[in-house]
Amino acid sequence: MRVDAVDFFYLSMPTVTTDADGSQDALLVRVRAGEWSGWGECEASPLPSIAAFVTPMSHGACRPVAASVLGARLDGPGDIGRIAAQVARDSMDLLQAAHTWSGIEVALWDLLGQLRQEPVWRLLGYATSEPKQPYASMLFGRTPQDTLRRARTAVEHGFTAVKFGWAGFGESSVRADADQLVAAREGLGGHGRLLVDAGQIWRHDLDAAAARVPALEAADVYWLEEPFEPEAYAVHAALAARTRVGIAGGEGSHNPQMAMNLVEFGRVRFVQVDCGRIGGIGAAKAVADAAERAGVTYVNHTFTSHLALSASLQPFAGLATHRVCEYPVEPRQLAVDMTLDHLNPDANGQIRAPDAPGLGVRVDTAAVRRYLVDVDITVAGQTLFSSSAQAL
Amino acid sequence: MRVDAVDFFYLSMPTVTTDADGSQDALLVRVRAGEWSGWGECEASPLPSIAAFVTPMSHGACRPVAASVLGARLDGPGDIGRIAAQVARDSMDLLQAAHTWSGIEVALWDLLGQLRQEPVWRLLGYATSEPKQPYASMLFGRTPQDTLRRARTAVEHGFTAVKFGWAGFGESSVRADADQLVAAREGLGGHGRLLVDAGQIWRHDLDAAAARVPALEAADVYWLEEPFEPEAYAVHAALAARTRVGIAGGEGSHNPQMAMNLVEFGRVRFVQVDCGRIGGIGAAKAVADAAERAGVTYVNHTFTSHLALSASLQPFAGLATHRVCEYPVEPRQLAVDMTLDHLNPDANGQIRAPDAPGLGVRVDTAAVRRYLVDVDITVAGQTLFSSSAQAL
Repeated sequence: MRVDAVDFFYLSMPTVTTDADGSQDALLVRVRAGEWSGWGECEASPLPSIAAFVTPMSHGACRPVAASVLGARLDGPGDIGRIAAQVARDSMDLLQAAHTWSGIEVALWDLLGQLRQEPVWRLLGYATSEPKQPYASMLFGRTPQDTLRRARTAVEHGFTAVKFGWAGFGESSVRADADQLVAAREGLGGHGRLLVDAGQIWRHDLDAAAARVPALEAADVYWLEEPFEPEAYAVHAALAARTRVGIAGGEGSHNPQMAMNLVEFGRVRFVQVDCGRIGGIGAAKAVADAAERAGVTYVNHTFTSHLALSASLQPFAGLATHRVCEYPVEPRQLAVDMTLDHLNPDANGQIRAPDAPGLGVRVDTAAVRRYLVDVDITVAGQTLFSSSAQAL
Repeated sequence: MRVDAVDFFYLSMPTVTTDADGSQDALLVRVRAGEWSGWGECEASPLPSIAAFVTPMSHGACRPVAASVLGARLDGPGDIGRIAAQVARDSMDLLQAAHTWSGIEVALWDLLGQLRQEPVWRLLGYATSEPKQPYASMLFGRTPQDTLRRARTAVEHGFTAVKFGWAGFGESSVRADADQLVAAREGLGGHGRLLVDAGQIWRHDLDAAAARVPALEAADVYWLEEPFEPEAYAVHAALAARTRVGIAGGEGSHNPQMAMNLVEFGRVRFVQVDCGRIGGIGAAKAVADAAERAGVTYVNHTFTSHLALSASLQPFAGLATHRVCEYPVEPRQLAVDMTLDHLNPDANGQIRAPDAPGLGVRVDTAAVRRYLVDVDITVAGQTLFSSSAQAL
């Protein structure tokens, strides 16, 4: 069997705001091989990601992603790894390639799962799909009162863990941040897990981060996520040495090694991986294996659809002790409508990677059509991409 | 003064081959502010890089590069650093942004140099532009005999240092690689500096690299470049501990921290930076400063035009002890024709960053027209980019 076609569908809400909310648009990918098809999602800027697939070659180490994918042999999971290695080598100098490839890779696993009538986690070698404890992932409120209300709402919806982030946290005073943390803890109650996402706000300023440590510890924060720019390993390690709050990071990694470096050199205790950026499910599984060996906790990074959520659960589905999982609770309607199936928490408030074949989440093509954004790319008079040629 | 316009010119040879030769196409950037203009070059895949400039926003941390650049205040060097920080933050999730921004950043320095009638290196704080010893950068021959001839030709052209790379090196047997190294050393003579670029061929396989160490040492190789994938720091450090040959790397870095990590954790002795990828001249200067502090050698990575070459010399122009510089000796005609000025070696075989204002290298717009590739990008019925709107 060969990879016959890769189609991209750029979806968007009618209005996109500057909120740090990645569910406002999406790049959906469909792969076809023989009689089979599979779906994936890039957690990436859609237009440059499409361009990285169709662009003309610049030289041998800067080829379009299409050159490694279209026509490639696809008979089993090993072929996905082989194509991944070829993309890494032949698109070495094409930075966006990792994001483009990520959605394709996810779709290839979904396709193989359909073909073999097995869930992806079983193709990865796991015997079971373990329950995960979802945390409600949301932005801080505009005021502490608003944050308190948001935390209470999450608890009312059955969440025992909540993550707040962005919306100005870390940018104004230590006192203002402390007020937000007090409010979040109050809303969540004494027993809930409180997580904080700093969104790289302190860049590489250890003192700025350390100034928040007393408030973070007073609020019994479980992890502090992305205090710094992701490659600033030394300062991550320095902060880790100064607080009992676990440091978390990794979502920006566009290959497995980057995430592993955050563990080895940055001393993070929670390594967060987005399948839609790191090179897909296989790349994420390599990080999960490394996390297990290193004694740190693997966590998915997911802020979009339940197609992406299912993909993100597969790499650590069988790892029973890695239980926390990110769960987007306030996605834009686009991310909700994109799929017919949703991974809703069970009576215990837990979710699992589905048992159905592939990712176990069907795309709602009729709904997707409503959000479709037309893209046309012409180079030297040749149409390299046209949405009209990608029939849903 | 404000940044009024950023224009992109995608240039290409009529035929692009799979050779690992980055001079086969180019993405030229022109920036305009007030009465002034400046030129830069992205060392990047042109189409995705243009897309990263014009793409619609996905969310607050995934904005197009244009959002941070167009209309931005530009009165002095500090403004370039401020815009760089804004791109890094607001385009955090847009992977290709670093490559797009790199060419723009270079053009902004060139523009400020024109405005102040100063070479860029002086704007960077250097008092002098020190001579650099160019090494001839070329691909291995298809046979050892061919490599020997190439080395001799380089010596005849006055080069005392030659770098060979790619073209299958590291992919077949240890013996075949040794034969290439013997031939290169023979062609170069006993005194010349021999450098080898492995092009990441051993990925993270320490044994494969270590197997070549005896031949590398026997040929008195000055540095071994990119033995592994660039983020595989631990294996870089392990190889460095096993040979007197200096390990080199860094060209793939798309921010300064990545290059510095190769020094700190990868123990490279030569840190190579491409201004057209790392975020431009300011980002590269930060690495040069860090290299100086760490006692390792800063080297430019340049494989394209003399516009890119001049840009690449600026960040370490004043560092007299960092003398080696990459010099593309067999660029495609496009890279030669692109500029009216060329940095030719002087009677001592040395080159220097020019004294003329800005980068000191004028673009040959008439010649550029011959290589121009038309690009049109339409999203949701709106033309976001059209080559026809970018008048040369």
